[in-house]
Amino acid sequence: MKIGIYGYGNLGRGVECSIAQNKDMEIFGIFTRRNPADVKPMFNTTKVYSTDDILKFKDQIDVLIICGGSATDLPEMTPSLASNFNVIDSFDTHADIPKHFANTDLAAKNGKNIAIISVGWDPGMFSLNRLYASAILPEGNDYTFWGKGVSQGHSDAIRRIEGVKDARQYTCPVESALERVRNGENPTLTTREKHTRLCYVVAKEGADKERIEREIKEMPKYFADYDTTVNFISQEELDKNHKGIPHGGFVIRTGKTGKEKQNNHVIEYSLKLDSNPEFTASVLVAYARAAYRMRTRGEIGCKTVFDVAPADLSMMTPDEIRAKML
Amino acid sequence: MKIGIYGYGNLGRGVECSIAQNKDMEIFGIFTRRNPADVKPMFNTTKVYSTDDILKFKDQIDVLIICGGSATDLPEMTPSLASNFNVIDSFDTHADIPKHFANTDLAAKNGKNIAIISVGWDPGMFSLNRLYASAILPEGNDYTFWGKGVSQGHSDAIRRIEGVKDARQYTCPVESALERVRNGENPTLTTREKHTRLCYVVAKEGADKERIEREIKEMPKYFADYDTTVNFISQEELDKNHKGIPHGGFVIRTGKTGKEKQNNHVIEYSLKLDSNPEFTASVLVAYARAAYRMRTRGEIGCKTVFDVAPADLSMMTPDEIRAKML
Repeated sequence: MKIGIYGYGNLGRGVECSIAQNKDMEIFGIFTRRNPADVKPMFNTTKVYSTDDILKFKDQIDVLIICGGSATDLPEMTPSLASNFNVIDSFDTHADIPKHFANTDLAAKNGKNIAIISVGWDPGMFSLNRLYASAILPEGNDYTFWGKGVSQGHSDAIRRIEGVKDARQYTCPVESALERVRNGENPTLTTREKHTRLCYVVAKEGADKERIEREIKEMPKYFADYDTTVNFISQEELDKNHKGIPHGGFVIRTGKTGKEKQNNHVIEYSLKLDSNPEFTASVLVAYARAAYRMRTRGEIGCKTVFDVAPADLSMMTPDEIRAKML
Repeated sequence: MKIGIYGYGNLGRGVECSIAQNKDMEIFGIFTRRNPADVKPMFNTTKVYSTDDILKFKDQIDVLIICGGSATDLPEMTPSLASNFNVIDSFDTHADIPKHFANTDLAAKNGKNIAIISVGWDPGMFSLNRLYASAILPEGNDYTFWGKGVSQGHSDAIRRIEGVKDARQYTCPVESALERVRNGENPTLTTREKHTRLCYVVAKEGADKERIEREIKEMPKYFADYDTTVNFISQEELDKNHKGIPHGGFVIRTGKTGKEKQNNHVIEYSLKLDSNPEFTASVLVAYARAAYRMRTRGEIGCKTVFDVAPADLSMMTPDEIRAKML
């Protein structure tokens, strides 16, 4: 199975590493909008091409993993590339998924290709767990908590404040809220009760720290609805202790069964990830395998993780997974 | 969707209750090997038939959920019924799954029906989580812990000892082992290091409690390889505090990503169930929906949870699940 990597940031590098862990796959190459000569891949055997040349390789790439941003890249790239390639993306703007699905479905069907969108952990593995749990326990409540983990969007928002040199923001689940959910209390939780925001900020020399802290805490949408803690630290400390990109979270469903609804059940799925982009990349690569197999069986059009049978993700044969994993 | 319930013990009663929570389904009836007049269903609207008459209803039942035991019932019942009905079972003798699959596959294909076997939580939801996690993190380790929960097989084994009036056995995961796994230590754990066994025993009047305790602790396969605690209690206390059938457990995979395998990830799935049979029944019912949809699309033969796309389990339409759950 020959996999193309379209876009080469943190996610693309994660995909390159992940493919090396999957013996039934090989990297066809990286496609970059930059000058290919300026891109240094993780492995020196990986070829680098310009995105301008991609159509030349239409018949040589089995699946293209698109590693672009959800804000502006993917809404354009995924439908456009789905006309000519089997594609996977990690589109994560939840509210715009129906539109992105429709656009990609049309293009993929026209091109007789398969596309799997919104692959990763949320959307992705968390979505799957919400679906499985709600199908099993129709009378119940769903809870999703994120963190502890770095939010790139919130870190960027802090860095845009005047006087800020660098920043890193962690989203943290509120432990007491998690415990109430696990105990089956079915609480109604406000935004503030579910998560806190923890910020590490490097201020420029002479900057007004009080004003920076106030601007962070009052920032609408990003911070105003949360209990936010701001810690000013040195660039050295930030570089030493906060350069990783960890993330994770919890999907919990509590529900009732029995004639009198007398029995409670708790289904919990959690992730603790050292590297958000590398884990997301690993999910993308597993779904690239599924896309290849589904297309080989004749399926076309846009799919999501909900449409993919789990067996299609595994390197093992159906006989092996039944014998070893069931 | 009309569902038949074949066999009416704890699991069959759970299925009857679960169908009442799924608005797109109705109970066709219960099929029992006993005299139908002697069976009292949970809901007085539920019809009861003899298993002898089942072929009369071949065209009226969409899916038959077979609620028999794995030791002797299901190896016979499932292939036999799959010749005439779409069927679901919860066959849980892990080592015999390949054989049961082959027998059922042949029968289902001959009858042009669909069969989904080994549905429940282990095998079932735990198997799914082992598969998803290993596909995402190919370089890693899997751990499954069970409990705290009642093991019927171990409780029965104690009840067969001379002088024992009643007994209840709980399988308990060892917390410190769980913590080592979660911390990514990748420990190699013996049977004894993973689980303990906790027994509540009611002795007959005048019975030799020391001998009973020794016989339990030395029982090969069931108890000898575990740290076992035996508590003698009164029948009243057992009836008051130990009549439930709770269970649950944990599936954890830890794995590494990155060029130097420098990043660790922990994927954890856990269940905390007040009623093992009612939860298993709820999983069976969700997969009955999938069986019906897959057969409607023309699929036949034997399947497992690995072959079922998650969307087929949900009452919601594909548009709804993309909009609400992705």
